[in-house]
Amino acid sequence: MLKNKEGLLVVISGPSGVGKGTICKEYFNQKKDAFLSVSATTRQPRQGEIDGESYHFFSHEKFNQLIKEDYFLEWADFCGQRYGTPKKPVFDCIAQGKDVVLEIEVQGAMQIRAKHPEGVYIFILPPSMEELRKRLEGRGTESKDVVEKRLQTALKELEYASKYNYYVINDTVENAVGLINKIIEVEKLRSERCNLNI
Amino acid sequence: MLKNKEGLLVVISGPSGVGKGTICKEYFNQKKDAFLSVSATTRQPRQGEIDGESYHFFSHEKFNQLIKEDYFLEWADFCGQRYGTPKKPVFDCIAQGKDVVLEIEVQGAMQIRAKHPEGVYIFILPPSMEELRKRLEGRGTESKDVVEKRLQTALKELEYASKYNYYVINDTVENAVGLINKIIEVEKLRSERCNLNI
Repeated sequence: MLKNKEGLLVVISGPSGVGKGTICKEYFNQKKDAFLSVSATTRQPRQGEIDGESYHFFSHEKFNQLIKEDYFLEWADFCGQRYGTPKKPVFDCIAQGKDVVLEIEVQGAMQIRAKHPEGVYIFILPPSMEELRKRLEGRGTESKDVVEKRLQTALKELEYASKYNYYVINDTVENAVGLINKIIEVEKLRSERCNLNI
Repeated sequence: MLKNKEGLLVVISGPSGVGKGTICKEYFNQKKDAFLSVSATTRQPRQGEIDGESYHFFSHEKFNQLIKEDYFLEWADFCGQRYGTPKKPVFDCIAQGKDVVLEIEVQGAMQIRAKHPEGVYIFILPPSMEELRKRLEGRGTESKDVVEKRLQTALKELEYASKYNYYVINDTVENAVGLINKIIEVEKLRSERCNLNI
């Protein structure tokens, strides 16, 4: 009677330090058969990293050529290196009816959203700004200046919150992953995502 | 950090015989504090029915005047009598931050949707057309002609399915109510429904 047209493109994003990495890790822990996107980068492989598994390692020249060829769903500069999400594996998976969950920084998420408004964009929020500051401080032994700079970045990223479809508060990882699972389940019931055979 | 702007307007609809009444009954059974809309009608009160509780009983003249005064969220003719949903109690409730769940026939639901696209429109589907026919036959001792006519009505109503936001299959009442609860929970996470205080 009811069949989804294709898999969902789910983008999980949010400000620096909000814990989106931990949330996605737990999500993939629970969904062993989920599609795992392998990012591309221009940085050098570290010891033990395998090309095509840890990352796709490309030279700057090759990476730039791939940008021109529309190879990436999104890409960004970080500390002088480029990072990107290859597009083809994502849409191959979606066409097979499987969902794709991606953890993407705010700028990259906005790149994807511009071209794929049919995706499901989830913005992870801290329980409070005090909590976010604590988490940014708690990361290590960074100086006050570094923490302050990160907080300023997070505040800028928070300005994009309303461009997303859903807000999920990261009070606990379990709650946040539970809500993400419910969002995915409910999005699959949206009429525009279903073929109705009567 | 996050607060819903107002309650949700949730309209539960679907073809004749699909079981939307049973689903709504079970929903209200589980949510004892939910807002219960009292319909208005021009038909005569039956024994034991109390004006303002069972229905708001109006004369035809009064009902027609109220239509002109935009008193109704939706109204319809049925067997020579008029039935309608008073608008004010619904939006008073929503303004107080409480959700309103309404069971409405397809035509009435389309009237509401035209004016309130921010509502959540859920279309209940039968597991199959055979099952729907069975349910229409199972209602009582109706003749084949009556069942056939009802099935034709149901088929016409099914044509409006894609105008709704969500499809929910009524395989079991528990499953359907469970999905409706999830839809409501997830809709409250939609960014446009939230005030974000940073």
